[in-house]
Amino acid sequence: VGGEPAGIRIEGEDDLVGTFLAPLAAGFPGALGLKDDCAVLAPSPGSELVLKTDPVVSGVHFLPDDDPADIAWKAIAVNVSDLAAKGATPRIYLMALSLPEAPKRDWMARFAEGLDAAQRAFGIVLAGGDTDRTPGQLSIAITVIGEVPAGRMVRRAAAEAGDALYVSGTLGDAALGLALRLDGALAARLGLGIDEAAHAIGRYLRPAPRVALAEVLRAHARAAMDLSDGLMKDLGRMCRASGVGARVMAGDLPLSPAMRRALAADATRMRDVVAAGDDYEILAAISPAACRAFEAAAAGAGVAVTRIGQITSDGEVRVLDAQGEPLALQRTGWDHFQPR
Amino acid sequence: VGGEPAGIRIEGEDDLVGTFLAPLAAGFPGALGLKDDCAVLAPSPGSELVLKTDPVVSGVHFLPDDDPADIAWKAIAVNVSDLAAKGATPRIYLMALSLPEAPKRDWMARFAEGLDAAQRAFGIVLAGGDTDRTPGQLSIAITVIGEVPAGRMVRRAAAEAGDALYVSGTLGDAALGLALRLDGALAARLGLGIDEAAHAIGRYLRPAPRVALAEVLRAHARAAMDLSDGLMKDLGRMCRASGVGARVMAGDLPLSPAMRRALAADATRMRDVVAAGDDYEILAAISPAACRAFEAAAAGAGVAVTRIGQITSDGEVRVLDAQGEPLALQRTGWDHFQPR
Repeated sequence: VGGEPAGIRIEGEDDLVGTFLAPLAAGFPGALGLKDDCAVLAPSPGSELVLKTDPVVSGVHFLPDDDPADIAWKAIAVNVSDLAAKGATPRIYLMALSLPEAPKRDWMARFAEGLDAAQRAFGIVLAGGDTDRTPGQLSIAITVIGEVPAGRMVRRAAAEAGDALYVSGTLGDAALGLALRLDGALAARLGLGIDEAAHAIGRYLRPAPRVALAEVLRAHARAAMDLSDGLMKDLGRMCRASGVGARVMAGDLPLSPAMRRALAADATRMRDVVAAGDDYEILAAISPAACRAFEAAAAGAGVAVTRIGQITSDGEVRVLDAQGEPLALQRTGWDHFQPR
Repeated sequence: VGGEPAGIRIEGEDDLVGTFLAPLAAGFPGALGLKDDCAVLAPSPGSELVLKTDPVVSGVHFLPDDDPADIAWKAIAVNVSDLAAKGATPRIYLMALSLPEAPKRDWMARFAEGLDAAQRAFGIVLAGGDTDRTPGQLSIAITVIGEVPAGRMVRRAAAEAGDALYVSGTLGDAALGLALRLDGALAARLGLGIDEAAHAIGRYLRPAPRVALAEVLRAHARAAMDLSDGLMKDLGRMCRASGVGARVMAGDLPLSPAMRRALAADATRMRDVVAAGDDYEILAAISPAACRAFEAAAAGAGVAVTRIGQITSDGEVRVLDAQGEPLALQRTGWDHFQPR
């Protein structure tokens, strides 16, 4: 695929699929070389399938001039993140690719490189899909399919009062990274070093779903979900689904050096940490008896996890500052259909 | 869902999912009420899963002012059609719904009615998905999942020289129907009666995937696929995948009374029959020994099938007229990325 000439456009659907996508499906016999109407999947004995679809659209989830390899990576990563949170091992994905025009060959080659990189990183293979022209923006609808041992998918609705709340990694970096990308002068205003700014932007461009945590969650978590719409909103969803509340200590939220420096310069960027999207970290409720084993297993899997609060029996979800007062925040998360 | 007030908009993602979509998932426990990140599917023992995703986009696959119930129906039907061609029994679907703005409640209620009608007609249930705002057109990316007994999916690439070629139903009606919808004076020019025009338009708006033929194909077909991009193009794909050719007799192609009358008035509408999309009929290659049993089983399933030609050993795909001459046709099918 490398070495495609710049500026030359794809000649047709069969060229696009045969040249750029079929090689990505070579590792999955059930893809039938992308030459059949459907893919066929033989589930592993004793397993159940875990399924998710979440499209990314130009101008909403990525910027039109983002590197096509980053766009492709993100389209897969945001879906694999859900599988990880459910304790599922990624297996295959289908891709519905809607393009505003016949893509240029070098753009498509870069896009395929991003798919390939994500496939290798997450252990997932292209199994099928469709390509279409759209009068709108570039849109990539990925459907991922993973496996869990039967009955072992980690639920969102199973948190119980008294459970400890954990998150993986650090929060807010992707939101900070997007802000940095949109405002070239922001890094200087916040006093961020080049490496710090690059870290945050990288977290926005190439989210790293916590695939390594899947088995750990299956073994030790009472409930889990991935953080895609902001901690407050997603924690609210877990609590509502479980019929519980939560108390989070703002001071315990895990922050990158970049985010710490940004907060020191502008405390209102706390919104990035608790109320912005695109973290793709894991939120997990762990029973008190399982906390030690969970922490050890996560460390063994090479994923940092941080205890940030606990599940309560009332229906309230609160993030408390050092004085025990609720943080005042205007936005409580990303909703595609709510007025800003 | 009925009785939603006109003109009032949806308040947020949770409202949209909870009010309009969750009821559609009630029949599938693995949907978890659409309150979890993912759906979970326990495959039937001894079965394999057959998977397909094919989005529909406003202005490409339907018109923006089409009835939302028809749009919803079509979004599911075009995917279920692929399952039927593969001999698979539909089970569940995921839906990625990208909306240009928060939809009005009465629009969304009609859309949900169309989903519900398709679910009942095809025996499929909503299992999960996602809703998003898009800066582009309304787009609906459905992923369908069906089941076949292990190893029994009907392939596209398995046609053999000497096989008889069959199609289900009649060809060209949807393309004629679209032309009628776009040109209010066309029905009169072609001399179509009101019922004939309504038939063709109905075939465009509400394609009827041949779910009833799935088991028949599994039992008797050597190879099959659904016709979505036009007979010539799709037959060409089957032949290329199988390493064979085909000869089709134009006079044997099954036509509705509407299409017959349109052809009598304008012979160039033959393009609708052989080179236009949206038929969603089945193309099947049947070994000579199996033809009688296939015809009987299709009749038993209540689906008309017509023998239209045969698979040949050369690589050529020809549609021959009554004089045995190849039909001259400029367009050979729908390709999203080829210049017109």
